[in-house]
Amino acid sequence: MKSRLDRIITLITDFGTADGYVGAMKGVILSINPRAVIVDISHDIQPQNILQAVHVLDSTHPYYPRDSIHVVVVDPGVGTDRKALVMRTRKAFFIAPDNGVLSHVDEQKLEAVAITNSRFWRKPVSATFHGRDIFAPVAAQLSLGTAIAEFGEPVSSLVVLPRSSPNVEEDGTIVGHVIHIDRFGNLITDVRRGLIPAGDIRVEMKGHSIKGLSGTYAEGNGLVALVGSDDSLEIGLRNGNAASFLNAALGDRIEIRLT
Amino acid sequence: MKSRLDRIITLITDFGTADGYVGAMKGVILSINPRAVIVDISHDIQPQNILQAVHVLDSTHPYYPRDSIHVVVVDPGVGTDRKALVMRTRKAFFIAPDNGVLSHVDEQKLEAVAITNSRFWRKPVSATFHGRDIFAPVAAQLSLGTAIAEFGEPVSSLVVLPRSSPNVEEDGTIVGHVIHIDRFGNLITDVRRGLIPAGDIRVEMKGHSIKGLSGTYAEGNGLVALVGSDDSLEIGLRNGNAASFLNAALGDRIEIRLT
Amino acid sequence: MKSRLDRIITLITDFGTADGYVGAMKGVILSINPRAVIVDISHDIQPQNILQAVHVLDSTHPYYPRDSIHVVVVDPGVGTDRKALVMRTRKAFFIAPDNGVLSHVDEQKLEAVAITNSRFWRKPVSATFHGRDIFAPVAAQLSLGTAIAEFGEPVSSLVVLPRSSPNVEEDGTIVGHVIHIDRFGNLITDVRRGLIPAGDIRVEMKGHSIKGLSGTYAEGNGLVALVGSDDSLEIGLRNGNAASFLNAALGDRIEIRLT
Repeated sequence: MKSRLDRIITLITDFGTADGYVGAMKGVILSINPRAVIVDISHDIQPQNILQAVHVLDSTHPYYPRDSIHVVVVDPGVGTDRKALVMRTRKAFFIAPDNGVLSHVDEQKLEAVAITNSRFWRKPVSATFHGRDIFAPVAAQLSLGTAIAEFGEPVSSLVVLPRSSPNVEEDGTIVGHVIHIDRFGNLITDVRRGLIPAGDIRVEMKGHSIKGLSGTYAEGNGLVALVGSDDSLEIGLRNGNAASFLNAALGDRIEIRLT
Repeated sequence: MKSRLDRIITLITDFGTADGYVGAMKGVILSINPRAVIVDISHDIQPQNILQAVHVLDSTHPYYPRDSIHVVVVDPGVGTDRKALVMRTRKAFFIAPDNGVLSHVDEQKLEAVAITNSRFWRKPVSATFHGRDIFAPVAAQLSLGTAIAEFGEPVSSLVVLPRSSPNVEEDGTIVGHVIHIDRFGNLITDVRRGLIPAGDIRVEMKGHSIKGLSGTYAEGNGLVALVGSDDSLEIGLRNGNAASFLNAALGDRIEIRLT
Repeated sequence: MKSRLDRIITLITDFGTADGYVGAMKGVILSINPRAVIVDISHDIQPQNILQAVHVLDSTHPYYPRDSIHVVVVDPGVGTDRKALVMRTRKAFFIAPDNGVLSHVDEQKLEAVAITNSRFWRKPVSATFHGRDIFAPVAAQLSLGTAIAEFGEPVSSLVVLPRSSPNVEEDGTIVGHVIHIDRFGNLITDVRRGLIPAGDIRVEMKGHSIKGLSGTYAEGNGLVALVGSDDSLEIGLRNGNAASFLNAALGDRIEIRLT
């Protein structure tokens, strides 16, 4: 068994790594708990793109060991009266601003507090860098075993971001939307596997029509539709970049019809 | 001595870090072996650029401790019938698709298996993300001491990528080729140190002529030719970017003549 | 207490991660001290941009535990007769070329040596990659407890980079300069908090005028001036990129006047 001293702290930020922001956070964490295992998930979230952070968090945290601590610092409202949160689910801990970035975490929530107890903060607290002065020390203290209730007052409701969801039209057509575009130009949609009808289907997007589902990106010619690693419908382009080819953007519409 | 529990797992992928792919792989590894030491080598391989992965792997793995586990996920054929490999050499372990990415590893090969035993995989296996569902759990199990034979059937031959090599022409001119362009714009060629003739030489590329070899990038004016850190001939530009200056590309021809 | 075997080695380089340079350094370190804790601070320093490395180092090293080892490899003069340094301060160790990158470290310096003892180097030493062959092995040896004097001869003076500093004009106007532009386009200046006059001020830059200081980026409309996380005056743009908006560059002038 892993002891408390080895707890994992993952980081998702929009800080990039050309400045010292991430490095400062890591230093603060290691100064408090030199045995913390810091895991870089992403520092390449687009500046202030909360939805991208949601996607990256949701496609990674389920794979981590029990009691891992996930820190998300994408925080356009830093220094304002937005709350800062520590949340505990059945499986893990989450530390983030209360701006919706945690609102799609599907695990059963057991406890959430607003970080109001300044005892654990670095001082003086910069109004522009809570990642270093609040989130990092709270994460490190949590990894040492400090109880979540020590960090502040319970909160009963969190800011919730609307979740993109597909519609089913009268004629049975499923209308989904692009919710993420990955590095390869694959278009990840909000249509989950369970919603895709059995039988012969046709997937239509931006004037292009794709016949049936492929098993892999390497199958078929040109555009392929498949169920991706998030268990959602994806559009890819064999040996190419579907997003560029289709000039696709977040929110773009995709239709699935039985043929 | 390092125990089995501390084995190093290095990662080379073309996943970038703006998506959650690398983060998911790390989570899977740490869930199986919380004591694995995960080392990011590169996630910035150009999408599906196997030759770049070969270069990065070959310029890094020799420097790692014995029994390190090197995982390379640059995998355009993911989900097809391309094999997935675990290979053991005298010095290290390698896990990668059988697409040639391991074919230039120069160490004596002791054992290779195709990963066919699904016992160690994450299930269900996504057809598009073997990095998370096959390569990561196999690497983690290997770091716990599982024998390589447990993962599947022995394979006798691997996919081999042709290796760029220089020619020597009748008049003694050596014709080499650019095989890598680094971040600084230095052009790394396939001409190894041993092939460069002793005596006064001239290096020619794209209409430019460089007299003799320099010891360092900072020597001379303008373009310099030198033996780089991979023990191969490199072209650099003092205080500049040789690749941009020469508008150079992979495969470009370079000539070495005795003067 | 952390033992010597767990010492932290941080890395700041301009190597990027698309080549194998960083991966090779990490391998060399772990081959010498498999228990070293390697922390990536930045590999995205612009090629050969020593001033950016200074800024990143100075905004991170103060947050690390005592006796951390900070390695900075931004080294346009690699292979020339520029010295390579190990420096010990009251708080930490620093390893870097003697090109000024350490000259703004504010901690009390206790000891500095030029790395002249080749006993600890990887051999043969590449003239173009001291990061791998000199800095990495010296860092790893230091993390094992080797005394700094073992690495070479004491040096009494280091290369010093001029430090950007603000002027106060006859009428009391403070003239500062942009010393760093971060990923968000925030402009960090050389005007420290203590220099900013109490009372109503106006901050002027490139024809724009900002009234008073804000507490956070999210306050006010358009351009904001505030004291940033480095305790210096910063210019930001609410929900935007101040650097792009102002077409700002390093060295640009900013004026602070009492109104």
